[in-house]
Amino acid sequence: MKTYLDCTPCFFRQALSATRRAVEDPERQENIMRMVMEQLSQADYSKSPPHLARDMYRLIKTESGDVDPFKDIKHESNRLVEDLYPELKDIVAQSPNPLETAVKLAIAGNVIDFGANHAVSSVDIHRSIDEALHVSLGENAFDNFHISVSKARNVLYIGDNAGEIVFDRLLIEQLLPQNIVYAVRGFPVINDVTLEDAKEVGMDKIVEVIHNGLDAPGTVLVECSDSFMREYDKADLVIAKGQGNYETLNDEKKHIFFMMKVKCPVVSSDVGLPVNSMMLREIGAD
Amino acid sequence: MKTYLDCTPCFFRQALSATRRAVEDPERQENIMRMVMEQLSQADYSKSPPHLARDMYRLIKTESGDVDPFKDIKHESNRLVEDLYPELKDIVAQSPNPLETAVKLAIAGNVIDFGANHAVSSVDIHRSIDEALHVSLGENAFDNFHISVSKARNVLYIGDNAGEIVFDRLLIEQLLPQNIVYAVRGFPVINDVTLEDAKEVGMDKIVEVIHNGLDAPGTVLVECSDSFMREYDKADLVIAKGQGNYETLNDEKKHIFFMMKVKCPVVSSDVGLPVNSMMLREIGAD
Repeated sequence: MKTYLDCTPCFFRQALSATRRAVEDPERQENIMRMVMEQLSQADYSKSPPHLARDMYRLIKTESGDVDPFKDIKHESNRLVEDLYPELKDIVAQSPNPLETAVKLAIAGNVIDFGANHAVSSVDIHRSIDEALHVSLGENAFDNFHISVSKARNVLYIGDNAGEIVFDRLLIEQLLPQNIVYAVRGFPVINDVTLEDAKEVGMDKIVEVIHNGLDAPGTVLVECSDSFMREYDKADLVIAKGQGNYETLNDEKKHIFFMMKVKCPVVSSDVGLPVNSMMLREIGAD
Repeated sequence: MKTYLDCTPCFFRQALSATRRAVEDPERQENIMRMVMEQLSQADYSKSPPHLARDMYRLIKTESGDVDPFKDIKHESNRLVEDLYPELKDIVAQSPNPLETAVKLAIAGNVIDFGANHAVSSVDIHRSIDEALHVSLGENAFDNFHISVSKARNVLYIGDNAGEIVFDRLLIEQLLPQNIVYAVRGFPVINDVTLEDAKEVGMDKIVEVIHNGLDAPGTVLVECSDSFMREYDKADLVIAKGQGNYETLNDEKKHIFFMMKVKCPVVSSDVGLPVNSMMLREIGAD
């Protein structure tokens, strides 16, 4: 997906949020914001939003010297959802269709996003879970997912955010003993998952975890590492979580199930669903 | 009030809205947006938001060739509220305190703002009116206004938006035969009132109407015309409507009553009231 002009106000909102986390001095904040404006005035908008966001966050990291302004938030989100884990596990176990419930919860967990949203509390997460349990995933969407995942030889599950990764683990536990590789970002960007988060929530204990070598809040394939691309090419089914992965993979010729909350008007218009909707969408089926 | 970094996402949102109204070609839209980003990357943030917005809207007008992209919207807003006028007049006439009610309605009418808000419908206006009639203007605020306006020799009433100007006329009718001059912007900017709007709603039939010689969505005194400044200096009481006038006049040593809806987090934080609050606030009393 290309970057729309409508994305620019959101870029500056995100830049300000990250800059304020990274530096305290208002004058330095202002200087960094001016550099971000200058950079975006010259950016190539045919690239996807996460591609341009990568350049923007890289500038903020370089200028501020803080390579991980959302580090504390990621730990907090992981802890927050780990505390919910027993409750979530019960919900799944006691539901008539545990796999479908786990998929819904995995989408509900995508509400934890410090790029599109401002801050997410335990109350927001519970609200998202309640909503998820009461909506339909759309005609045939879950059935197709169930069939595809049963047939797949190699599943690549591309994670999105910290905290949300605990919901991913819950879903992956339902999919095992399927052959699954879980992919995280190569370097910190916003509150996106990295190897550190995967270890923190024990994802590496249940499946192989790889990183994509990249510092973008999405999966910009042309910039991903060779080792990630080998896993991507090997996979006959991809599960991609969140808007950032959607925005970077939605035009691919690959069998992908996107699982996400629709968080902004631009993506809403692209996918044809209202903001705040839950989405399970398949592309590239044979 | 100076411009905060938090204002920048809003500037770009406004720029995009105006640019899309002014030109149809996406490529030209993109070029103008790039120029806006470049301009704001170098702007002097010690100036007020309406001052920087003036420069931004001037750039958009110059590059697009459309000096009044909100012309139709202003006519529509004027017509919309003129249709409501008999109803509003009744509400005022039948209320226990017609002047207080007219003040509340004048603040309610400030909801019509295409800078801070996206679009305003008849439903939004009715909701704003209903809210206004059921909230208090704050301890002593109305009484002080009533006393001040009774004592004043020359009142300068600085308008804000089209449509809203019909609510202003309703209030001014309650204040007459007080000596009142009504001021509008010198040139079109967003949906702010100009002489054209004042004539359209018959404001010139009941009071003297002047313009400030300026194309800013506020009252940037250092840039206003000499003839406006003579009226400003002559006035012993100013009534200033809306955020744009607040942001440009809040640091003045002048007896001013601000009447507005609080529309954004930056002004909310400055005035210490929640977004969507109604505000009647006095500064510069002896």
